[in-house]
Amino acid sequence: MAVITEYIALSTKGNAEVLNITPQVEKILKSLKIKNGIVNLNCIGSTGALTTCEYEPGLVKDIKETFDKLIPAGRYHHDEAWGDGNGHSHLRSSLVGPSLTLPFNDQKLIVGTWQQIIFIDFDNRRRERKIVLQFIGE
Amino acid sequence: MAVITEYIALSTKGNAEVLNITPQVEKILKSLKIKNGIVNLNCIGSTGALTTCEYEPGLVKDIKETFDKLIPAGRYHHDEAWGDGNGHSHLRSSLVGPSLTLPFNDQKLIVGTWQQIIFIDFDNRRRERKIVLQFIGE
Amino acid sequence: MAVITEYIALSTKGNAEVLNITPQVEKILKSLKIKNGIVNLNCIGSTGALTTCEYEPGLVKDIKETFDKLIPAGRYHHDEAWGDGNGHSHLRSSLVGPSLTLPFNDQKLIVGTWQQIIFIDFDNRRRERKIVLQFIGE
Repeated sequence: MAVITEYIALSTKGNAEVLNITPQVEKILKSLKIKNGIVNLNCIGSTGALTTCEYEPGLVKDIKETFDKLIPAGRYHHDEAWGDGNGHSHLRSSLVGPSLTLPFNDQKLIVGTWQQIIFIDFDNRRRERKIVLQFIGE
Repeated sequence: MAVITEYIALSTKGNAEVLNITPQVEKILKSLKIKNGIVNLNCIGSTGALTTCEYEPGLVKDIKETFDKLIPAGRYHHDEAWGDGNGHSHLRSSLVGPSLTLPFNDQKLIVGTWQQIIFIDFDNRRRERKIVLQFIGE
Repeated sequence: MAVITEYIALSTKGNAEVLNITPQVEKILKSLKIKNGIVNLNCIGSTGALTTCEYEPGLVKDIKETFDKLIPAGRYHHDEAWGDGNGHSHLRSSLVGPSLTLPFNDQKLIVGTWQQIIFIDFDNRRRERKIVLQFIGE
């Protein structure tokens, strides 16, 4: 059994941009010496989130529109602290969550054919992001 | 330390049906040779979700009605890709998340008395489902 | 590789009180003999939730107000079972989720500077809570 830490760097546009990071995760997994285990993925920062979806252009639009309805941009108490107008970004991120843990066997993720790992950048501006991947396996 | 992969098969009705899978998880856990660790559960597919709740008939109805309000069935951009009318299913699944990780000691899940592991099938039709359980422990 | 189980006890006011438990998690982590791995945190019980946010007074208020809008207190079918008026507490808890898994290296959590681990007590009364921490690492 081993613990291996890896990172994925992302340049995002923010505003609920949805990025499919499955190819990067799979590439790293293939390069490691462990075959079976789990990968714990986390967004470093409090305005991004990780989950899965079928990554296709329609759903990418639907995700943005759904969060615009559920937790719209606007005035939040958070503005009293920083005045940066991204209260909604923080709230959406806490709701979806920063963390996702997935299994793999024989160096392959066990996910559905139409199920991709997505990072949603909820911040209200461009960001440079780091996703941390903690692999535990044998 | 060992990694052990197991599966649970489910026949669901879809439409936010809530299934309590705690008995199946506990049964598998009892059959394994590891005592302490974690189990990482994932729904294979992008229209189901895993979380916990007190599994009782009232809450099962409440869950369905809550999601009918938060993310109602209707027209989504996703329909332009497949026309299968389940955009809301995907969006609900991404929001709740496909993944749940729980601890166990002495081959027993560490959860509350009124806290069950539930699979919610958000798809808009009957489905045959596979839940993957990745156990890591000693 | 080792599995280590620890607990954090909390006295809460309920009603979407947000508690920052990062200091307790870091203190436990420093006391352990493992350096690299993951910690799987879970709320025992079905009316609390774990996630991350920037812990500052404005967002703490925003979180409460956001859930009061998304899933308001009121009449739910759950009341037919117990009559304790906390149907909304259960639904919010299932939505956010009871579980959070985070990585650490050199006995330090890998999280953002403005990213804290929060426990949200959604119940409608004061509660004594136990959070279970399952550490897996080397």
